[in-house]
Amino acid sequence: MSDSEQEPANYLSDKELLALDAHWRAANYLTVGQIYLMANPLLDEPLRPEHIKPRLLGHWGTSPGLNLVHTHLNRVIKNQDMAAICVWGPGHGGPAVLANSWLEGSYSQTYPDVSRDAEGMALLFRQFSFPGGVPSHVAPQTPGSIHEGGELGYSLSHAYGAALDNPELLVACVIGDGEAETGPLAASWHSNKFLDPVHDGAVLPILHLNGYKIANPSILARLPVGELDHLLRGLGHDPLHVEGDDPLHVHAAMAQAMDTAVSRINAIQHEARREGVTERQRWPVIVLRTPKGWTGPAEVDGLLVEGTWRAHQVPLAAVRENPRHLEQLEQWLRSYRPRELFDDQGRPSAQVLEYIPEGTHRLGASAHTNGGLLVRDLPMPSLEGYAVPVDKPGAMQHEPTRVLGGLLETVMARTAGRRDFRLFGPDETASNRLQDVYRATGKAWQEKTLEVDENLDRHGRVMEILSEHTCQGWLEGYLLTGRHGVFSCYEAFVHIVDSMVNQHIKWLRTTRRIPWRRPIASLNYLLTSHVWRQDNNGFSHQDPGFIDHVLNKSPEIVRVYLPPDANTLLVVADHVLRTRDYVNVVVAGKQPCFDWLTLDEARGHCARGAGIWDWAGTETGDEPDVVLACAGDVPTLEVLAAARLLRRHLPDLAVRVVNVVDLARLLPAEEHPHGMADAEFDALFTADRPVVFAYHGYPWLIHRLAYRRTGHAHFHVRGYKEEGSTTTPFDMVVRNDLDRYRLAMDVIDRVPGLAVRAGSVRQELADTRLRHHAWIREHGTDLPEVTDWTWN
Amino acid sequence: MSDSEQEPANYLSDKELLALDAHWRAANYLTVGQIYLMANPLLDEPLRPEHIKPRLLGHWGTSPGLNLVHTHLNRVIKNQDMAAICVWGPGHGGPAVLANSWLEGSYSQTYPDVSRDAEGMALLFRQFSFPGGVPSHVAPQTPGSIHEGGELGYSLSHAYGAALDNPELLVACVIGDGEAETGPLAASWHSNKFLDPVHDGAVLPILHLNGYKIANPSILARLPVGELDHLLRGLGHDPLHVEGDDPLHVHAAMAQAMDTAVSRINAIQHEARREGVTERQRWPVIVLRTPKGWTGPAEVDGLLVEGTWRAHQVPLAAVRENPRHLEQLEQWLRSYRPRELFDDQGRPSAQVLEYIPEGTHRLGASAHTNGGLLVRDLPMPSLEGYAVPVDKPGAMQHEPTRVLGGLLETVMARTAGRRDFRLFGPDETASNRLQDVYRATGKAWQEKTLEVDENLDRHGRVMEILSEHTCQGWLEGYLLTGRHGVFSCYEAFVHIVDSMVNQHIKWLRTTRRIPWRRPIASLNYLLTSHVWRQDNNGFSHQDPGFIDHVLNKSPEIVRVYLPPDANTLLVVADHVLRTRDYVNVVVAGKQPCFDWLTLDEARGHCARGAGIWDWAGTETGDEPDVVLACAGDVPTLEVLAAARLLRRHLPDLAVRVVNVVDLARLLPAEEHPHGMADAEFDALFTADRPVVFAYHGYPWLIHRLAYRRTGHAHFHVRGYKEEGSTTTPFDMVVRNDLDRYRLAMDVIDRVPGLAVRAGSVRQELADTRLRHHAWIREHGTDLPEVTDWTWN
Repeated sequence: MSDSEQEPANYLSDKELLALDAHWRAANYLTVGQIYLMANPLLDEPLRPEHIKPRLLGHWGTSPGLNLVHTHLNRVIKNQDMAAICVWGPGHGGPAVLANSWLEGSYSQTYPDVSRDAEGMALLFRQFSFPGGVPSHVAPQTPGSIHEGGELGYSLSHAYGAALDNPELLVACVIGDGEAETGPLAASWHSNKFLDPVHDGAVLPILHLNGYKIANPSILARLPVGELDHLLRGLGHDPLHVEGDDPLHVHAAMAQAMDTAVSRINAIQHEARREGVTERQRWPVIVLRTPKGWTGPAEVDGLLVEGTWRAHQVPLAAVRENPRHLEQLEQWLRSYRPRELFDDQGRPSAQVLEYIPEGTHRLGASAHTNGGLLVRDLPMPSLEGYAVPVDKPGAMQHEPTRVLGGLLETVMARTAGRRDFRLFGPDETASNRLQDVYRATGKAWQEKTLEVDENLDRHGRVMEILSEHTCQGWLEGYLLTGRHGVFSCYEAFVHIVDSMVNQHIKWLRTTRRIPWRRPIASLNYLLTSHVWRQDNNGFSHQDPGFIDHVLNKSPEIVRVYLPPDANTLLVVADHVLRTRDYVNVVVAGKQPCFDWLTLDEARGHCARGAGIWDWAGTETGDEPDVVLACAGDVPTLEVLAAARLLRRHLPDLAVRVVNVVDLARLLPAEEHPHGMADAEFDALFTADRPVVFAYHGYPWLIHRLAYRRTGHAHFHVRGYKEEGSTTTPFDMVVRNDLDRYRLAMDVIDRVPGLAVRAGSVRQELADTRLRHHAWIREHGTDLPEVTDWTWN
Repeated sequence: MSDSEQEPANYLSDKELLALDAHWRAANYLTVGQIYLMANPLLDEPLRPEHIKPRLLGHWGTSPGLNLVHTHLNRVIKNQDMAAICVWGPGHGGPAVLANSWLEGSYSQTYPDVSRDAEGMALLFRQFSFPGGVPSHVAPQTPGSIHEGGELGYSLSHAYGAALDNPELLVACVIGDGEAETGPLAASWHSNKFLDPVHDGAVLPILHLNGYKIANPSILARLPVGELDHLLRGLGHDPLHVEGDDPLHVHAAMAQAMDTAVSRINAIQHEARREGVTERQRWPVIVLRTPKGWTGPAEVDGLLVEGTWRAHQVPLAAVRENPRHLEQLEQWLRSYRPRELFDDQGRPSAQVLEYIPEGTHRLGASAHTNGGLLVRDLPMPSLEGYAVPVDKPGAMQHEPTRVLGGLLETVMARTAGRRDFRLFGPDETASNRLQDVYRATGKAWQEKTLEVDENLDRHGRVMEILSEHTCQGWLEGYLLTGRHGVFSCYEAFVHIVDSMVNQHIKWLRTTRRIPWRRPIASLNYLLTSHVWRQDNNGFSHQDPGFIDHVLNKSPEIVRVYLPPDANTLLVVADHVLRTRDYVNVVVAGKQPCFDWLTLDEARGHCARGAGIWDWAGTETGDEPDVVLACAGDVPTLEVLAAARLLRRHLPDLAVRVVNVVDLARLLPAEEHPHGMADAEFDALFTADRPVVFAYHGYPWLIHRLAYRRTGHAHFHVRGYKEEGSTTTPFDMVVRNDLDRYRLAMDVIDRVPGLAVRAGSVRQELADTRLRHHAWIREHGTDLPEVTDWTWN
C-alpha cells in the first residue's frame, strides 16, 4: 500500500520503469557475482566449478533491498538535482553497495584498476571477501560510506550527525529490521526532536522490513500493521508504506514514495526557512517491505529460501561440489538477463545508466562521505585570554572544566557562521560546568519550550539527549562528514559507548591505510565527574576503566590525557581540537582544583607529556632517594601533599615529583608514537630508585604500560581498586590507599633503611590518617585541613 | 485524564483517600528528613542549623512520584492479596524507597537497629548519604531492590527478567522520563513480545513524566499527547493516563488506574491460562504525569523550583548557612503535618499504615528481591553422556559449542517443570551451534508465526532479541530473582554490555558484604564466534577485550575461562553453572577443533586451572629449555603445532607445553582467589627459561597478570594486536604473529645459543610462512596442510 493518491502501477512510464528495473537487475547481478564468482564474470561460457570461489562469504538476504533503495535514490537525486548521501544500516550487504558504486562509476574513479568493463568486473568479483581484497561488509574502503557494516545500531544517529549543519543535504538511512531491535537504534529515532529544519539537512529513514534476522523473524516485521504505523507516528514520522514482491509494482510504489518524501521534506524546509514556521513537523519515513533474498533461489535442497531467514547469507552453499547448486546459481545469474545489461566489453548499457546522477551527486562520490576533504581548522583563539594566573603553585583554586568552558564559548562564537563545531553530552553540559558556552549558543531543541526553560534554542549547537549512544553516534556522523566536536560525559558511564568507540577506532585505523580517505577531526572525549569525585553518587558511578579500554586499541589512533589543573586542561583541549584522526580521551575534574602551572609552564609540560616538577621535590642534583609520580588531578594533589609531608617530616630525603599528563608517554617508543625511549624514561623515573606512582585509574594499567622499563620492578602503583560508596572526597582516596598519608608511608616503606629511621614519622602519618577516618564517620565531612589546604 | 469511565474524583471514599494521602505525606516527610536532617527528626523543636547535615546529598525531584507509586502499589497489593515487586528506574530517588521500606516495617526487620520509632527514624535520617551509612541511590542495601539506582536504562529489562517464569508475580516498573531516552530502555519496550502470559508473570510499566532531567526537559514529557499515546500503542500497550498536581485528585486517578491495570492483567492471564487465547494482548501501561519535586518549595531565592529541573537534587542548598532556607525547610517539613502521621514515639499512625500489605507481600520483604533465598541447584547430569571420546590427542575434531549444546539440552529438559533456567542471546543460538537445546524447548515468541518459522514457541525458554542490552537485562533480572541462565554472544559485540556488567559486578560485590543478601546464580557468558574465527566478517567483528574489561573488576566476582577443546568446555560449563555470585566469562569456539583431552584429563586440568601437557612437550626431567604456553583454543592449536615443528626439526630441544584454562591462575594468590602462589607459578613456567606465550586476546594482558612473577622478564607474549580483515582463519593468526611458524621462530630466537645452531631451521620456518601467505592470496583458502593437520 502507499499513502499517495495515485495508483502506483501508473506512476511511472514504461520507459522509466524498465530503466529502473534494468539498473536494479544489474546491481543484483553484480551482487551475486561478487559472492560467488572468481572467473567468467559475464557468463561467457557455462559455469564450471573452477569459476566459483573456494570460500563463499557474503550476505545476500538484504542486498536486493539495498539495490532497490540505491536505484531509487539515484532516480530522485537525478530528477531533483540534489545532493544526498546514504547510510546503509544493513552494511553487511556490502556487495550491493559495491555493485552500485561500480555501476555509477565512482568505484572505478576511486580504484582505477577496477574499471567499468569486463576486466574491472572480474576484479570486482574476485576481490570481494577475498584475502587481500575488500571486506564483505560496507567499510572505509567502500566509496560513499561513512558507516561500517559491523556492529548494528548506529545508522540513524550517524545519519543525523551527518545532516546537522548541512542544510542542502539529504541523508537517506536504510535501517534493517534486525538493527531496529537494538537499543541505540531505538533511542536514535528521537533525533528528529533535535533536527533544525533551517540550518540542518534532512534525514530520510527507510525502514527495510525483509522479515528476518539470522535465524528469527524480526519484531517490527511481525507487528500488526496498525501497531507499526502507530509506533512510527509516535516517533514523530509520517510513514509511507511500500510493499510487494512484484518488481515492477514495487518500483512504481518506491518511486512514488521517494517523490512524496522528498517533496514533503522540501515543504518542511521551505516553511521553516521562508515562512518562519517553528513548530516541529512530522518528517516522512519509508517502510519498505520486500522478501529477504528477493529474486534469489526460491528453494534449495527442498527448503524454502527466498523470503526466509535462510536467505541471510549464501543461499547456495555448496556450488563447487554440488552440480545441482551450480546449475541453480547459473539460472539465478541468468535470470537477471546480463546480456541486456552489459555489452560485450562488460560495460553497463545506457538503459542501466539512465538514472545515474552526475559527478559528486553520485552516492559514491559525495565529498560529505570523505569528510577530510571538507574539514577546516577550527578558529582557535590564543589561550592567554582564558588561562588562570598562577603566582605560585597551589595558591589559588579553579574549576578546570569551567575554565575550559570559556575557551569553548569562544570557539562556539567564532564558528557561529561556519557552523562546524558542536558540543555533545547526555544532559550534563552544565553539570560538567561548561555552561559558558550558552553565552554563544543554546541547546538544540525543536519541541515546545516553556517559560522556565533555559538555553533551549531551535538553532543551538549544544546537543543534549539522555543517551550516550545517540550523542556518540551524532558526533561520529558529524566528524565523518568533516566537522568538529567534543563529547562531555561522566567518566563511569562512557563505558556505555565502549563498543561504539571500538568501531570508530577501527574505522580510523583502516582509513589511515587508504590514500583517498583524508584525515578527519579527532573524536574528543572530555570525561569529567570522574571516579574520585563521585563521592556523592556512590559506587555505581565510579569507574575509570575507559582509559584501559581505549589503550587496548591501535596506538596510532588513541591518546589519553590527564591534565592536573586548569591551565594544563586548556593546553590539552587546544591541542586535541587541532588534531586529526585520533580518539583523544581527556579526563579532568569539574570541582575546584589547585592551580599548579602557569600557562607557559603548562605548555612546556604538555609538550613533554611528562616531566619533573622541581618546585615540588627536594632533590639536590644527584639521583633522588625516591620518585613520587602522579597522573590525574586528584592523584597530583595527593602526591604534592605527600611531598609536603615528607619535606616537613623528613627534610633530608631527596624526593622527585614527576607528573604525567600524556599517559602514552609511559609506553615504549616502538609501541606508541608518543612512547618514550628507554633512556628518557630512566632519566625521569631513575633505573633503580623506588617509584611510588599515584594514578587516576586502575593501578595495573601503569604496570601494563611500563613493564618493559629498566626500573619497573621498583614501581609501586596506587589507584582505584573498586573501593567506593557515598562518602566524602577524601574518604574516597583513603579507601583506595591513594591518600597523601598512605603515599608518604609508602615512601618510608620503600626507601631502603628509611622505615627504621623514620618509624615515628610513619606512626604519626598512620595516626593522622585514622583521625581523618574517625572525623569523617562522625561529622560526614572531611577535616578542614584537607579541604582548606594550600600549597606552601 | 483517565481512560476509565468513572470520574476519578469519586473513585475513592474519603477514608481511603485520606489514608492514602497520609501514607504519601509520611513517605514524603521521611524523604525530606533523610536528605536534610541529622537530628530533631520529629521537629520536636524549631529547626536549628546543627540539625542539618553538613553535606546535602540526594535527589528530591523524583521522590514524591516514587512515593505516590509505592503508596498505590501498597493499596492494590493489599486489596488484591497479590504478590508484587517493584523495579524503581529512577533509583537515584533512594530516600523515597527507604522511606517506604521503613514505613512498612521491612526496613526494621532487615536492620533491627533502625526501628520503626523516633530513635530509628533518627538513624534512618542520619545514615542516608552519610559516610559509613547507606548510599543515596537504591542499592543492594535497600530491602526489596533488585535494581541499583546507578546507570540508567535497565529497569524495564530487569523487570521482564524478574517476571519470566514467575506466573503469580506482578512486577511494577517505574520508568523515569530521563531513563526513557536511553537506548537500552527504548529497546526493552519490545520485551512484551516475549512475555508468556501462561508461564510468566506480568510487568506493569509506570512511565513517570515529571518533565525534566538534570537540566533539560525530557523528550517524552514534551511530546504532543497524541504522539505519546501513539508511541505507547505502537509499543503494544494500552496507556492509562494519570495527571495532575492536586494530590487528592491524583490519588483517586492513580487508584483507579492501578485497579484498571491489574484487572486487565488478570483478564489477559485468565484468557491465556484458562481459555487458550494465544494472540498477544495489549498490556496496560500507566503514564503518570506529576510535577518534579511535587510538594517541595515552589520558589527558592526567587527562582521557580517545584515543577522544574531545579528540583532535581536538593532544592534548598544552603540550609545551614542561610536562615531563610532553614525557615523554608521547616515550613516544607511541617507542610506534611508530621504530628498527624507519627505519634510521640515516632511510630506511624494507624491511618498511615492502613494499606501496608502483610508479610512478604510488602515490597521490601519479597523473597523474589533476594533471589538467593529461592535459588535451587540446577539438575546437572553427569558429563559422561556428553563428552567426546579421545583415544589420543588431536586425532578427532568436534565443534565445542555443539558438544556443549547437548549438555544444555539436558539441563533445559530437566528444568522443564521447574522453569528456572533460560538461554539468552541476540539471534545467535543456532549460529553459535547450540541448537540442540531446541529439542528441549523453543524460542520465546508471542507474535504470529508462519509456516516457515522454526523453533518458535509461546512457552519457549530460549530468549533471542537483537539487543545485547535487553538480553543482559533480562538475564540479570532472572538471576537476581533466583534463577539460572547463560548469555551466548559474539565475543566482539559483548562490549555492548560493558557498562551493564560493571553495574552487575558492583551489585554482586556489594551484596557479598550484606549478610541478609543470599548468593545468587552466577552470570555466565559464553563468548563464541570469537576473534580468531571472524575471518569471514572481518575487522569490525574482531575484539577480544571483554576479558580485559572484566578483569579490571573485583577479583572476588570475576572468572575467565578459555577451554581449549570440547571436553574442557563441558567441564568448565558444568562448573560455572554450579557457582554463585560470580561473573563467569567462557570463551570457546564454534568451529571444528581438535580434541586434546579425555573427560577425566579435562577434569583434572580444569581443577588445576593451568598445567603442563606432558604429551605435547619434549622435556626429560630437568628444567626445559623453553616453555610454550597457551590460553585459548586457537592459540593452543598453534602452540601444539609449533611444538610439533620443534620436535621434528630440533628433537634435542627440551620444550614444555603449558596450557592455561583459568586465566586468573596467572595472578598472584593475594590478588585473586584463583591466583597461584609464586612457587607454584615458578614450577610451572620456570624462573629463568624463556616463555613464549600464545594468548587468545591482547598480549599485554598476560604481562599485566604476571608482572610480579620471578620469571616475568622472560615472558614473550603473542596475541591479537588489531590486525584483521576479511580473510582466512590461518591468515588471521599469521597477521597477528600468533601462527605456529612464528611461535617456533620465537623459540629459536629466545633460547640462548639456538639462533646460531638452528639458523637453517629458522629460515625454513620463515619460508614456509611466506609460502602460506602467497597461497592464501592466490587461492583464497588456507593450505590444506594447515586445515587437515592432525596431531601425531
